[in-house]
Amino acid sequence: MRLVSYRRDGAVRHGRLEGDDTVVELGGGDLGVLVATVFPLTAGTAPKDTGTYPLSDVELLAPLSRPGKLLAVAANYQDHVVEGGGPPLDKSVITPRLFLKPPTSIVGPGAVIPLPDISDRVDYEAELSVVIGARTRNVPVENALDVVTGYMTSNDVSARAVDFGKVTHSASDRAVWFFEWLAGKWCDGFAPIGPWLVTADEVGDPQTLPVELQVNGETRQNGSTRDMIFPVAELVSHASRVMTLEPGDIIMTGTPSGVGDATGRYLKAGDAVTVTVGTLGTLHNTVA
Amino acid sequence: MRLVSYRRDGAVRHGRLEGDDTVVELGGGDLGVLVATVFPLTAGTAPKDTGTYPLSDVELLAPLSRPGKLLAVAANYQDHVVEGGGPPLDKSVITPRLFLKPPTSIVGPGAVIPLPDISDRVDYEAELSVVIGARTRNVPVENALDVVTGYMTSNDVSARAVDFGKVTHSASDRAVWFFEWLAGKWCDGFAPIGPWLVTADEVGDPQTLPVELQVNGETRQNGSTRDMIFPVAELVSHASRVMTLEPGDIIMTGTPSGVGDATGRYLKAGDAVTVTVGTLGTLHNTVA
Repeated sequence: MRLVSYRRDGAVRHGRLEGDDTVVELGGGDLGVLVATVFPLTAGTAPKDTGTYPLSDVELLAPLSRPGKLLAVAANYQDHVVEGGGPPLDKSVITPRLFLKPPTSIVGPGAVIPLPDISDRVDYEAELSVVIGARTRNVPVENALDVVTGYMTSNDVSARAVDFGKVTHSASDRAVWFFEWLAGKWCDGFAPIGPWLVTADEVGDPQTLPVELQVNGETRQNGSTRDMIFPVAELVSHASRVMTLEPGDIIMTGTPSGVGDATGRYLKAGDAVTVTVGTLGTLHNTVA
Repeated sequence: MRLVSYRRDGAVRHGRLEGDDTVVELGGGDLGVLVATVFPLTAGTAPKDTGTYPLSDVELLAPLSRPGKLLAVAANYQDHVVEGGGPPLDKSVITPRLFLKPPTSIVGPGAVIPLPDISDRVDYEAELSVVIGARTRNVPVENALDVVTGYMTSNDVSARAVDFGKVTHSASDRAVWFFEWLAGKWCDGFAPIGPWLVTADEVGDPQTLPVELQVNGETRQNGSTRDMIFPVAELVSHASRVMTLEPGDIIMTGTPSGVGDATGRYLKAGDAVTVTVGTLGTLHNTVA
């Protein structure tokens, strides 16, 4: 199923897509309600529908807007690590580099990504997002995909440098650099997600998906999830060794090469950004 | 008012304390419901009560259990910076070092802090927590306290080293060190909060509060919020320059000196940890 959150008649609701232009409504509130209560999510386990509406009559929202955790992973594709100027990572001596983004960063398909006034180096990162469906602690790698309820297209928008009007020593002081890097992941609108969640049963192997991004129609990223340093199962397993994962938690899984920071081509007002991850649908956003 | 979340007859509710042993119920769900809908929170704005119960008949919970953002600040007291082996920070060239903790780290008064199996260096950090009451973006320092709805006692429990069974180069590679440091802030139970939220009108100046912590009755931390490098107003203002703050968002404001990492005395199973921040009440937790 392709599951969506949307606004209809002023209220937030969730449903599934049927064909390309019909929404079959499944309930009130956003998809978080369904993800929290039904697992696994399949055509057989979904609740009875309560109505059918033309897709054009509803406003699609981010499939999940208030996850308990929005985790993301830095440096999870070697070609992206290398384009950033670093040596390739030796997987045998590192663990996944997880960080958290706030729910205020989430926006949906069609939404604006606002350029913050603290940075003039705003960049895109096309990423596969994973949605947890079952409460999980210490899940082994070999069982980790069993707790995934679905996948989404997403963009880990990032301010590569932030400026609060102070001269900080971010080039020479790694602590300064790191906390500024982290804040640069948090701005409003810096986590576009959607247009829908595709249930795990229809995705199959998450490591064979093309990951593509265009800015104003020009292809900037063109990778594949097969090139992740830590594949989805290892990311989920690792995160669950740190803390309990809950239904609705999201993990953005890192980005392949082609980011603007590698060439100095940052996002600017008016840019149209589209991200496509395999069969998960295309996410359109504009920068303003 | 001292506002509490609690379980009574199997359901989560919120109310205010009257004297030392009575709960006046204000509504269903935890305090997040009230914080999201009433601001400022005073005796005059609180909803009509729906009943009165002996405190001993209810189970106190964390005042807020699922904030949109649980922010915390690293290195916000010079004596803590120095005990960690670093030079004092020059405030003129740094900004507040914010990071996020997940809601799964939150536990309430009386709850257990579980020792995770990924660390044998689990440490305490007594901290003043600030609760945002109004949706806020780019608030100037001079108005920043106006968006605070209340304050709480809290503990930013931290694993000073994590071990995932891999030899990582955390001593020599700052990126490895940083992401391991971050993960060490996230474990389940690593954000005890409570016993209650005291509304801002009853706290007044947040920069005059003693911050004390005892382990098994022995005083380990004995500081004052007057020694924060970035006081509450500057933290709130800075965070709001990065992103929108929402009602119910929490900011843990950093810890004074005396942490276990400075002496090698980490928390161990059976330890009783108590934190007191001024008139905000004493938070008791045990380690297991």
